[in-house]
Amino acid sequence: MIVIAGPASNGIGFRLSKILKAEYTRAVTKFFPDGETYVKIEGEIEGRDAVIVQSLYPPQDRHYLQLLFMIDTVRDLGAKSIVAVVPYMAYARQDKRFLPGEAISIKTILKGIEHAGAEYLITVDIHNEKSLEEWLNIKYVNLSAAPILAKYFERRMRNPLILAPDRGALNRAREAADVLNCEYDFLEKYRDRNTGEVTIKPKKLKVKGKDVLIIDDVISTGGTVVLATKELLRLNADKVYIACTHPLFAGNSYEKVLSSGVEEIVATDTIPSPVSYVSVAPLIAEYLKNILK
Amino acid sequence: MIVIAGPASNGIGFRLSKILKAEYTRAVTKFFPDGETYVKIEGEIEGRDAVIVQSLYPPQDRHYLQLLFMIDTVRDLGAKSIVAVVPYMAYARQDKRFLPGEAISIKTILKGIEHAGAEYLITVDIHNEKSLEEWLNIKYVNLSAAPILAKYFERRMRNPLILAPDRGALNRAREAADVLNCEYDFLEKYRDRNTGEVTIKPKKLKVKGKDVLIIDDVISTGGTVVLATKELLRLNADKVYIACTHPLFAGNSYEKVLSSGVEEIVATDTIPSPVSYVSVAPLIAEYLKNILK
Repeated sequence: MIVIAGPASNGIGFRLSKILKAEYTRAVTKFFPDGETYVKIEGEIEGRDAVIVQSLYPPQDRHYLQLLFMIDTVRDLGAKSIVAVVPYMAYARQDKRFLPGEAISIKTILKGIEHAGAEYLITVDIHNEKSLEEWLNIKYVNLSAAPILAKYFERRMRNPLILAPDRGALNRAREAADVLNCEYDFLEKYRDRNTGEVTIKPKKLKVKGKDVLIIDDVISTGGTVVLATKELLRLNADKVYIACTHPLFAGNSYEKVLSSGVEEIVATDTIPSPVSYVSVAPLIAEYLKNILK
Repeated sequence: MIVIAGPASNGIGFRLSKILKAEYTRAVTKFFPDGETYVKIEGEIEGRDAVIVQSLYPPQDRHYLQLLFMIDTVRDLGAKSIVAVVPYMAYARQDKRFLPGEAISIKTILKGIEHAGAEYLITVDIHNEKSLEEWLNIKYVNLSAAPILAKYFERRMRNPLILAPDRGALNRAREAADVLNCEYDFLEKYRDRNTGEVTIKPKKLKVKGKDVLIIDDVISTGGTVVLATKELLRLNADKVYIACTHPLFAGNSYEKVLSSGVEEIVATDTIPSPVSYVSVAPLIAEYLKNILK
């Protein structure tokens, strides 16, 4: 097996290779004066299982083309099999035609990875797992980072309580609660009938005196977690922690979340950020061990 | 027929539709806070011949993904046929594995257009026409802009002489010379055996007292045409003109070429630039008339 790290995910690629005791090579990339990416794969590829790691955080389009160039080249070089590891999958939120004529971007993105020559796709907390089922004709898996994020807080929280940001994410909260052996709930938006004001509260559980962990798949503008943190502190939660898989933090949203009163924010390394302390490499390595043995 | 103009080529798309008396629609694009492109195609697509126009100048990767999203969507919407018009084809210079392990980027790019669902590809002066033959399984044509560029100079030059920047581009010079009914030649690099200095001179023809037109497919850094212009003026050419299909002008190269002593630079509108005065729309329309009648 050889692990090929794309420019977006050198760290994860290197860690993967160490855990798997596999050979590691960094895809060489540079830019031409007009902005085109140049890609070169060094190392012996022929006849080997190739694992290509490239996350699709911004600039998404550039990172995506680098991924396609890598897959296509590794196929040309005669790899025995090609696993594409895409820790953060871009365009995953445009997963249906909400309005007539809209592009289903994630379909185009996934199809491109398949047609370039990948035979297996590994993602982490993709926005909608059904996209993989619906559009891919190759094997795939979507791994949950909730347990490893919860693990990070194992000795950091007292009286823990896990909250999902909405009902749809309750499964993620349950996975985290299993690790921390605590209760979990989800946040629901309430609109005050008199003032029209929107608040976000836990559906059932009381938070008073608790250390609350909000666990989310992606923080983009941070609107929901900021609102939730403030409300939880108003309800006398002891401390509020935020864990997310993909710290996208568009614009100045990182500063916004930081100043919401949160005790600590932690994210995985699918996207570089000031808080990407939890690596998804062990999670992915564990899965790769099973499929490539 | 319906002409769908991508954000990179609204002008060419609009002109195409006027010449062809075809319906025109602009692909609606916007950007999400994290930088992802949103694409929506308005208008009646089902059962119609769709012509999608999108040039791949910088930011190439973004323009390329917009193209794929448009093709995929138009196919979903039930177009009868899909012609992709890509006036400037990005990544065309990475057309072979110059070093082991290098990506053949143009292959990946062309295959992506095919797999997204295009059934015909129209390019203008692609770097190497053989790439189309080698990598595409759909129909294609590569149109030459040399005649329309030459036409622009028809009443502007006295004693004209056409020069190709190198031997490989002699065909383009011949096409232009046919229009202007004049002689043509190519430029060759000479290295002085004593000083090591490189000069660029016409292979055979004398330039003294002539109006010389250098015709090139792409001006990227502008190095060759600057060197050539200076040498041609030293050899007492009367005036030096430069025509190119794709005015890429990386960095400050436009200013560099302008200050070389050249009389006028003219380019086509495959790439926006201060001198993109010659539209490729009539050229493309003429071809579309034949294949879509």
